[in-house]
Amino acid sequence: MEVLSENKSFGGRQLVIRHPSKSTGCDMTFALFLPEGEGPFPVVWYLSGLTCSHANVMEKGEYRRVAAELGVAVICPDTSPRGEGLPGFDPADWQMGQGAGFYVDATEAPYVDNYQMYTYVTAELPELVFAEYPLDAGRQSVFGHSMGGHGALVCALRNPERYKSCSAFAPIVQPSTADWSKRALGEYLGADESKWRAWDSVALIEDGARFPELLVDQGEADGFLNDGLRPWLLADACKAAGIDLTLRMQPGYDHSYFFISSFMEDHLRWHAQRLN
Amino acid sequence: MEVLSENKSFGGRQLVIRHPSKSTGCDMTFALFLPEGEGPFPVVWYLSGLTCSHANVMEKGEYRRVAAELGVAVICPDTSPRGEGLPGFDPADWQMGQGAGFYVDATEAPYVDNYQMYTYVTAELPELVFAEYPLDAGRQSVFGHSMGGHGALVCALRNPERYKSCSAFAPIVQPSTADWSKRALGEYLGADESKWRAWDSVALIEDGARFPELLVDQGEADGFLNDGLRPWLLADACKAAGIDLTLRMQPGYDHSYFFISSFMEDHLRWHAQRLN
Repeated sequence: MEVLSENKSFGGRQLVIRHPSKSTGCDMTFALFLPEGEGPFPVVWYLSGLTCSHANVMEKGEYRRVAAELGVAVICPDTSPRGEGLPGFDPADWQMGQGAGFYVDATEAPYVDNYQMYTYVTAELPELVFAEYPLDAGRQSVFGHSMGGHGALVCALRNPERYKSCSAFAPIVQPSTADWSKRALGEYLGADESKWRAWDSVALIEDGARFPELLVDQGEADGFLNDGLRPWLLADACKAAGIDLTLRMQPGYDHSYFFISSFMEDHLRWHAQRLN
Repeated sequence: MEVLSENKSFGGRQLVIRHPSKSTGCDMTFALFLPEGEGPFPVVWYLSGLTCSHANVMEKGEYRRVAAELGVAVICPDTSPRGEGLPGFDPADWQMGQGAGFYVDATEAPYVDNYQMYTYVTAELPELVFAEYPLDAGRQSVFGHSMGGHGALVCALRNPERYKSCSAFAPIVQPSTADWSKRALGEYLGADESKWRAWDSVALIEDGARFPELLVDQGEADGFLNDGLRPWLLADACKAAGIDLTLRMQPGYDHSYFFISSFMEDHLRWHAQRLN
């Protein structure tokens, strides 16, 4: 693991780290914030949305002040494999390929060799980072935004024993049926839509997956609300399954980091209460 | 004035606005954060550093949470005129021209027609923005970073009746003698160095300018500390002049927005105490 940058911030250390990845077959870059002190620190994983790298939330998410106060580490992975030689390298196609890994393990060519983002964020990267830094693997939580909100929900629903808590900003709750994710699932996972259900929060819950409680903030002025996000589908599924969902519709807020940063503190406090 | 974007954040409105400017002879873009409520709001001006536009602090400065709580508006101007047809258009030369206006009024060709950034930030932009938005022109403060810290100190020392308070992150306190600003002052103001003194905080104080109190934060791990910034020169000048300078050397912090954001809250509270 190569530290690309380290900056002191709010008494802690904001690191950017690059490492070769087996699951994605390329170098991957992630951000790690360590609060002041010796640790081991509980960890909150933040999964980013379409087009983002590790840098967007690191620059605009405003998590360091609260994470430093609460004594939690924050890890922000990239959203896909990266590189000119890799499949999905089309900067104009922001809903597919690089920047759009959707946190699935692809089964189809040409993506199968690199697009193993679920394995990367739940297995490979945790193993690497827990070996190197003073982090407490027994205290992990996960949250994310949009595509990364989908990723956080899927990670938690598939691993309820692993994560102490899960929350999301404007998550894609049913990617199997949303315009901006349906094509990606088809290309990563194949035409058999029954295989998509393992990567879809609402379908996972319908099929029996459980997580004790969830927090979701959703801006009412979000331009993607009705076509891409549709949190009411998650509310219905949670109600039927007895999952304690706190869904907060936030008047006037959109899909941007201006929205995320406004509620970052609430989410980190939610996680810290369940981690500590 | 054309609103390019508006995003709700921390209950307030983050605006980005473009307007034609007489003093710079081109369209200028600035950021304006308005807290929730009717106003009129006191105003804190944030002047950015070399290479920055209005966007850097808007994205990375983490000012909205505290500004919203304190009920202060924050205005973030650009750092120079902009445009391919304008002088100083060389992205490789980050210490001169576009992105490097140094908040002076240029007197020399080819800069004299556009590089009137002092007039822009102290006269033209205030007049425009106060006419349009619920702001209290009788309650203004100014702060900034690096080149913008220099700008804030110069604005305050030249207009002690205008600004209720002034602070800076890692300011260039004596641009007349610093490597990264000396050339710019020469090109904007001409070879007669006596004319530079009106744009140099330490020289202004030596020549009799006064401001009641100043707050400066400076990272001890800032790579520009010894050659470009040298806050001890300001400390010496303030001591000799009886100006109440609070200079805080911050161990481990560098010159980045990771540093600025860490102390943004302290600065905004400092200003709000003096504005309210």
